[in-house]
Amino acid sequence: MAQENYDSRRIDGKSLAGKIEAQVRQGVEKLKGEKNVTPGLATILVGEDPASRMYVRLKHKACERVGIHAEDRNLPESTTQEELLGVIRELNSRNDVHGILLQLPLPKHLDSKAAMLAIDPAKDADGFHPYNMGKLLIGEEGLVPCTPKGVIRALEEYNVEVQGKHAVVVGHSNVVGKPMAAMLINRNATVSVCHVFTDDLKKYTLDADILVVGTGVKHLIREDMVKEGAVIFDVGITEENGKVYGDVDFDNVVRKASLITPVPGGVGPMTIAILMEHVLTAAKNA
Amino acid sequence: MAQENYDSRRIDGKSLAGKIEAQVRQGVEKLKGEKNVTPGLATILVGEDPASRMYVRLKHKACERVGIHAEDRNLPESTTQEELLGVIRELNSRNDVHGILLQLPLPKHLDSKAAMLAIDPAKDADGFHPYNMGKLLIGEEGLVPCTPKGVIRALEEYNVEVQGKHAVVVGHSNVVGKPMAAMLINRNATVSVCHVFTDDLKKYTLDADILVVGTGVKHLIREDMVKEGAVIFDVGITEENGKVYGDVDFDNVVRKASLITPVPGGVGPMTIAILMEHVLTAAKNA
Repeated sequence: MAQENYDSRRIDGKSLAGKIEAQVRQGVEKLKGEKNVTPGLATILVGEDPASRMYVRLKHKACERVGIHAEDRNLPESTTQEELLGVIRELNSRNDVHGILLQLPLPKHLDSKAAMLAIDPAKDADGFHPYNMGKLLIGEEGLVPCTPKGVIRALEEYNVEVQGKHAVVVGHSNVVGKPMAAMLINRNATVSVCHVFTDDLKKYTLDADILVVGTGVKHLIREDMVKEGAVIFDVGITEENGKVYGDVDFDNVVRKASLITPVPGGVGPMTIAILMEHVLTAAKNA
Repeated sequence: MAQENYDSRRIDGKSLAGKIEAQVRQGVEKLKGEKNVTPGLATILVGEDPASRMYVRLKHKACERVGIHAEDRNLPESTTQEELLGVIRELNSRNDVHGILLQLPLPKHLDSKAAMLAIDPAKDADGFHPYNMGKLLIGEEGLVPCTPKGVIRALEEYNVEVQGKHAVVVGHSNVVGKPMAAMLINRNATVSVCHVFTDDLKKYTLDADILVVGTGVKHLIREDMVKEGAVIFDVGITEENGKVYGDVDFDNVVRKASLITPVPGGVGPMTIAILMEHVLTAAKNA
């Protein structure tokens, strides 16, 4: 089969993210023009972890692109829980901050659950607050986790029917698997959630019309595990010797998929674009 | 096969509820003795719907059995939203009320979502508040919906292994299906959620080690749809000519199940016992 055919199966996360960002940029300009409000995102980074610094930098760059005001609260490694909560309370109370993002993981001496709980749910850009997770579960999606929301947006953009389809989610993390399953259930897919305790994973993946994989296990999903024509989202990232791998063996699986995200350049850029969308939404609701 | 064999497969919800209630009664006495606190449940019933009145009465009777103080707020059909919210706020503020139960459905002129949101999550005996639903989704189960929690308790009491098993939930309501799925995922089952949009329901139910059905469709699940040895919970109730039917064709399905709840006398009594447990928990946490 010609290489061109496979190219058309690749979900281009960068281009999709660009499209979402263009919409957000328009929305930001409209909000500035009509209400004189500039959406603002405050990121909180405790310590100097290089990966976390990079993620925060990527988010700030995205803010620049779409016209969102970004504020960087880079706190020292030695920050106490009370100091951290103080910063969150201050940001909660400020009218010019519409989204608050606490970059995880925190240094071990800090209680990240308590910190996340302290964020005003209306400013919870990441969608991890229990209140927002609960709204998600009962089908009233507001600020929801960005990565699974990015998958939903991609399904919409590529006109993939979800209702009545068998969607299989591999991985049951709070960040991806569980909210992803809830969003697919809300859209009337038949949803199976698999994970490290699943017996015979292949039995489920082989039956998936839509397959979302987020486990962090390099090339867990091989060609013989997917159904002809499946739509596949690879949310996993493994770094090995400076190279980045997904949970899906893309080069071989692409032969059977009808649509599939690569790693990198798939779900990653979409996640950040959705974060921008959330800040705009929060600013509109404020 | 002898009738006795089938009897041993029946999950006796009444006896299980009795066991839970006995534990609650002990806990209530301990709390009274050690902290001089009597757990209190306030029920709010708006209007005169006979079924709702009966449900409230059953809950008050259970309170009596376990030593929980029960308060009945029976408001007239003409109650306004502001009056209802006023009652909820009053109950939120009272130290002697640890659980608040808003009996649904409310009369149509009232906004039940807004009313449920007004209940202090710490007093949310039914576990329907988004904050509690979100805690459930992220695996920090506190006050959770009573019916699925009753199923979990039965699985524990009957020593049914959940981890790694295929649990199939039929129905995706906010009251049963979605929280049930979340609880089973939290316990590391592989979970499939089916519903009215599912193509080929039988394909899923036939593969279920644990099957929970809550659709309100009389005898939806027939003998040819279940796996030999399955553990089956029937959460459905349909009334027809004064008789009550479950979602599972018990008389025939029992031949294949290893354990199965009847309707009535299965999940129903367990739900109320779990409600009592919740009020005790809320009183302990207060």
